[in-house]
Amino acid sequence: MADEQGDRLPARRARIDTYQQPVIYMRADCPVCRAEGFEAQAQVEVTAHGRTVLAILHRVDAEWLRPDEAALSEAAWNLLDLRDGDDVRLRHAPQLESLAALRGKVYGRELAYADLRALMDDASRGLLSDLHLAAFVTACAGRLSAREIVDLTRAMVDVGERLRWPVAPVMDKHCVGGLPGNRTTPIVVAIVAACGVVMPKTSSRAITSPAGTADTMETMAPVELDAAAMRRVVEREGGCVVWGGAAQLSPADDVLIRVERPLDLDSEAQLVASVLSKKIAAGSQRVLVDVPVGPTAKVRTAESAGSLAASLEATGAALGLQVRVVQTDGSQPVGRGIGPALEARDVLAVLRREPDAPTDLRERALRLAAEVLEMAGRCAPGDGLALATRTLDDGTAARKFAAICDAQGGMREPPRAPHTHVVTAATAGRVVRIDNRRLARMAKLAGAPRDPAAGAVLHVRTGRAIAAGEPLLTLHAQSTGELAYALSYAASHRPIIEVVA
Amino acid sequence: MADEQGDRLPARRARIDTYQQPVIYMRADCPVCRAEGFEAQAQVEVTAHGRTVLAILHRVDAEWLRPDEAALSEAAWNLLDLRDGDDVRLRHAPQLESLAALRGKVYGRELAYADLRALMDDASRGLLSDLHLAAFVTACAGRLSAREIVDLTRAMVDVGERLRWPVAPVMDKHCVGGLPGNRTTPIVVAIVAACGVVMPKTSSRAITSPAGTADTMETMAPVELDAAAMRRVVEREGGCVVWGGAAQLSPADDVLIRVERPLDLDSEAQLVASVLSKKIAAGSQRVLVDVPVGPTAKVRTAESAGSLAASLEATGAALGLQVRVVQTDGSQPVGRGIGPALEARDVLAVLRREPDAPTDLRERALRLAAEVLEMAGRCAPGDGLALATRTLDDGTAARKFAAICDAQGGMREPPRAPHTHVVTAATAGRVVRIDNRRLARMAKLAGAPRDPAAGAVLHVRTGRAIAAGEPLLTLHAQSTGELAYALSYAASHRPIIEVVA
Repeated sequence: MADEQGDRLPARRARIDTYQQPVIYMRADCPVCRAEGFEAQAQVEVTAHGRTVLAILHRVDAEWLRPDEAALSEAAWNLLDLRDGDDVRLRHAPQLESLAALRGKVYGRELAYADLRALMDDASRGLLSDLHLAAFVTACAGRLSAREIVDLTRAMVDVGERLRWPVAPVMDKHCVGGLPGNRTTPIVVAIVAACGVVMPKTSSRAITSPAGTADTMETMAPVELDAAAMRRVVEREGGCVVWGGAAQLSPADDVLIRVERPLDLDSEAQLVASVLSKKIAAGSQRVLVDVPVGPTAKVRTAESAGSLAASLEATGAALGLQVRVVQTDGSQPVGRGIGPALEARDVLAVLRREPDAPTDLRERALRLAAEVLEMAGRCAPGDGLALATRTLDDGTAARKFAAICDAQGGMREPPRAPHTHVVTAATAGRVVRIDNRRLARMAKLAGAPRDPAAGAVLHVRTGRAIAAGEPLLTLHAQSTGELAYALSYAASHRPIIEVVA
Repeated sequence: MADEQGDRLPARRARIDTYQQPVIYMRADCPVCRAEGFEAQAQVEVTAHGRTVLAILHRVDAEWLRPDEAALSEAAWNLLDLRDGDDVRLRHAPQLESLAALRGKVYGRELAYADLRALMDDASRGLLSDLHLAAFVTACAGRLSAREIVDLTRAMVDVGERLRWPVAPVMDKHCVGGLPGNRTTPIVVAIVAACGVVMPKTSSRAITSPAGTADTMETMAPVELDAAAMRRVVEREGGCVVWGGAAQLSPADDVLIRVERPLDLDSEAQLVASVLSKKIAAGSQRVLVDVPVGPTAKVRTAESAGSLAASLEATGAALGLQVRVVQTDGSQPVGRGIGPALEARDVLAVLRREPDAPTDLRERALRLAAEVLEMAGRCAPGDGLALATRTLDDGTAARKFAAICDAQGGMREPPRAPHTHVVTAATAGRVVRIDNRRLARMAKLAGAPRDPAAGAVLHVRTGRAIAAGEPLLTLHAQSTGELAYALSYAASHRPIIEVVA
């Protein structure tokens, strides 16, 4: 019998990954399904352990599910923190108040903080369907006022946890992404912390790329630290590089990403709110944002970068966060490695001042570290680069990095893949273009980031003259099968590295 | 191996009902999944028997699926007309050209006919995901120019079938809805056809209401007729009331509705394009549009009604369709029943001249029939009402209706729900207001239109003096759960029927 509480059923893990969409699987002949009148695609409120998610119902008519149980997708299972056999309570999804605000925005109404807060609250609690999230992201694209962007950012912060640090200034850096191998963060944190500036860095794992900063860092030290462990590391070493996902910082952002990705909609306003909400929630006070600009990067023109910078700075200022934006070259990958361990090797080569360390990665990291040091007031304007270079070159940064890794649970060397294959140039000529997007795809086919040692190492850069038979890149994989998949992808499409005679 | 053709795998029926969304289930360790680099929630193009659908990937890590097979949801299985063990070809969904147009609209660009045509083409072929459809509907809400509305309407007509009739004029009528129980169409068609005027009526199923005309009609006769069957009915009887969805008339409209319904978004521009594309595709030449106006109807003010009327008439004129709009009272429900079968009972009571037939429904139907007869030139202006009344009162209309139902496949009596509950007045007083929207919502929570017998029957009208304990309405439901759910909704909000002492 349905009442205000709903019906109970034992839960079961469906072991179906629907990305972040919570799905509940029930048989059509399930007594609860029939009593409640649940239809396929209905929104069902699922409660357990005091937590609630709204799941879409998929009705199953197969042997693997019994009529007296409910199975849940990975997203729903994890959100509810379930164990097999736990009971869940089920009822029709309630009518959400926040949908009136969404409807208003669709018709162009300017939303107040309370509206945005209600929407982000419901989003972070898993109460908005993917369709509603898509409508929200669409209605906001290009149609949020500066005040609304501020309030959206504030609302995203307010619905999650917030770290606080007993020092000032707390520094941060962020890259808007889209450039393979652009792994400056561990180097910047090491330099900055070595100079006595506090930089508690939370990073993400890869969403669509072959490696996120958290994936790369994990090949050198543990990154899944909770807020207390992170605090101990920062108190001891002045910096850290940990995965931010465990800390519930701006959880609504993670939910919006799940529709932005398939819609390929990443509007300026959403980007600003996404980046800044994470930084504010992490307790940062001054943030340097790296915006790579290039034809296959996320930001394609200097004009877009300028508009993005203005919005980031104004929104940050309204929320007490000082933001500085630097535009960098986004025309080709940075460093040589693509994939967690291969990028980590580049990072270590730069920190350890190895003779063949990639100079582009070194120079980017130094430039960004210099900006952070100047923003922090650690040195006079214009003196940052010298300080950063000295700190890297005298080995202080390398020692600080090792100390941070030890504090995070112990430093380790990045793994090596057992199988490699060298791709060579068919003809002599000049490298005219490197396709960032397809290079990333090939590295993923080789197994990155799932296999941390997998990926690719680039041996050339654009503009380089090469001889026939010269190595262009080396693929790394955990199995010969994956090596073959990546190679066949490379072979069956137009060249990833374009060489013109 | 991945190539332009994609990979082959034997297909298997997952027996999972995801409503209309095509889903493909593959194991993460499936060689094709790895080779193609498919991620959870990726769009996969699935081809078999020369048909193609885009399916969302859900990754499975359970025993019921083998790594060397792909399972498909009911929607995908049926769209591809598969048998167990058939091979399907899989590859990454191609980048659709139409998405550039969608993206443009999201950022406020005015779309050309070619853009709208491409979008409606892809929508009607099932190539746009639900998220993309939601983005389109959201981006268009309140933001289409008059020219875009004409072109959208034309594009929706052009991607589907188009009926042509060897007679003139071909009449039609339409109600924009929002008024529970306003089921005049079957009565109007019966009267008009009985007078020898041709009215091949295609109707829709409910979008956001507890019943569409097609849902109501279906409780009295089959409505899923293809174009040939519909033609036979009209040739024989001069009129029909069928579901428009089977005839492939403006098929993109049906696709858009699948997201408009859960989003509860039905903008003026979409409404105009939806209504007129169906009418033009059905071969209509003159259309009467009934716009109920009231504080809780779909159209709330005479001004909005005027704006909608202007848009309907101008868009119709641009496309060679004569449109006349009549504003009617939308302050309270029409008739007594709300829900497919309960509304059908009211229709039959009027046609059969039963003593307790709802007079408001009768009077509205007569007024609209009179307008249609005059528009068609069947009588002089001003004489329509007398002709319509005579045709209803002498039983000609009832006989015509029965003949139409028989021609459509056989007349039947509407079903009755197994569970009912009478809601009574807590205190004596006068009924001052009935909330159409919340009444409709309650009827939907009771199961309408999914369960045709579900819904509500009103026992009072505004202005009526009532005693304490007098019945206000009766809820009808297929399950006790739904009955409880509808009641708890009614109990937890301010009264749907407002009684003042």
